[in-house]
Amino acid sequence: MCTMSEQPQDRGITAEHPGVAALFAVLAYGELAAFERLAKEAEMAPDLRGRIAVSSMAAAQMRNFELLETELDRRGQDVAPATAPFAPVITRYHERTTPRNWNESLVKAYIGDGLAADFYSEVARALPAEPAAVVAAVLSDTRESDFAVERVRAAVTANPALRSPLTLWGRRLLSEAITQAQEVLATRDELAALLFEHSGDLPGVAQFFESLQTRHAERMATLGLG
Amino acid sequence: MCTMSEQPQDRGITAEHPGVAALFAVLAYGELAAFERLAKEAEMAPDLRGRIAVSSMAAAQMRNFELLETELDRRGQDVAPATAPFAPVITRYHERTTPRNWNESLVKAYIGDGLAADFYSEVARALPAEPAAVVAAVLSDTRESDFAVERVRAAVTANPALRSPLTLWGRRLLSEAITQAQEVLATRDELAALLFEHSGDLPGVAQFFESLQTRHAERMATLGLG
Repeated sequence: MCTMSEQPQDRGITAEHPGVAALFAVLAYGELAAFERLAKEAEMAPDLRGRIAVSSMAAAQMRNFELLETELDRRGQDVAPATAPFAPVITRYHERTTPRNWNESLVKAYIGDGLAADFYSEVARALPAEPAAVVAAVLSDTRESDFAVERVRAAVTANPALRSPLTLWGRRLLSEAITQAQEVLATRDELAALLFEHSGDLPGVAQFFESLQTRHAERMATLGLG
Repeated sequence: MCTMSEQPQDRGITAEHPGVAALFAVLAYGELAAFERLAKEAEMAPDLRGRIAVSSMAAAQMRNFELLETELDRRGQDVAPATAPFAPVITRYHERTTPRNWNESLVKAYIGDGLAADFYSEVARALPAEPAAVVAAVLSDTRESDFAVERVRAAVTANPALRSPLTLWGRRLLSEAITQAQEVLATRDELAALLFEHSGDLPGVAQFFESLQTRHAERMATLGLG
């Protein structure tokens, strides 16, 4: 993917690096798809409070999308053609992780939000100050998932038989997310270059995926799973 | 419904009037339902740009919902039980006006937004300053429909045969909205009292529905219909 190990400043990574627009585009499509999925999953809610909570999570994704859309626009990129190339890989993730019930959808909302946050954090580390601030703004708005934690914990406490299938489900979410993220990095050199030049080629990639796993395990524990 | 004709100040309409919370609740459920419907209708979009535009409109409804939720909360009302009583009448409106295609969904998004805005304006006139400001804030955020206007006008220009069925569709939206609004006012005295005390009983109601029709006709003309 990339063969240099200097810091981003040394490599001349700037807000105009081609990876920056590609990054905003993949994140934007991810937010749009998350919006669509959450809006649909809200229909599975057993009560009005659940419908409201998941609908709010969905709307928060769209706010993130709009922020990224504005940034793409500032870079002269129209959001629809910029994001379209990332549709297949993100659609594949969601098709392979379609929740079969309300608890699975809550776990996915929480775990998905967390993985997105991890990804955003990693990305912010690699970016120059100005695009990093955009990413941080999006990140700060991906934390509406107290509701999911509360409900999943309550469900698992009330019915311990849910614990094992939901734990497997959580693992599947992580492994599919990693598979699809690797696919993106393998096919979009400018993204791999942007994200991992500062940390030195493949060790950087490996470290990133390792840290994802650690934080994923923490989140599973928060849900009372794993 | 109500029999006094004084100004709201004379009638002692305050931010604590029981109609205020009922009003915020019916508006909130309306926003939630609009979110759900628009999120679903975005799937009918023929292209990514359309999906994005309608998803953004959906998310804007949820922002309005959250504003109203906060206000209900400030009044000690939990949003779920407060809004639930209004679910049947709003669901009925949407069931009777389910778009069969993309153009119908765009017309509904635009006309529905406009009717909501008219309703919010009328409501703001009747309210004391503080809740009126909440309503005005929600209102200011119901204007994201340029996309719908542009697309509907283009569709009707390209295919004039669409004009007549979409005009009928627009009329049906108005008449269903009026039917369901009257149903709400007939069954919730505190709302009727809040909204129409200042204008003097039934003439006020009649004037309101008349002004809805005038503005509806203007919007239909904007869409190139009617």
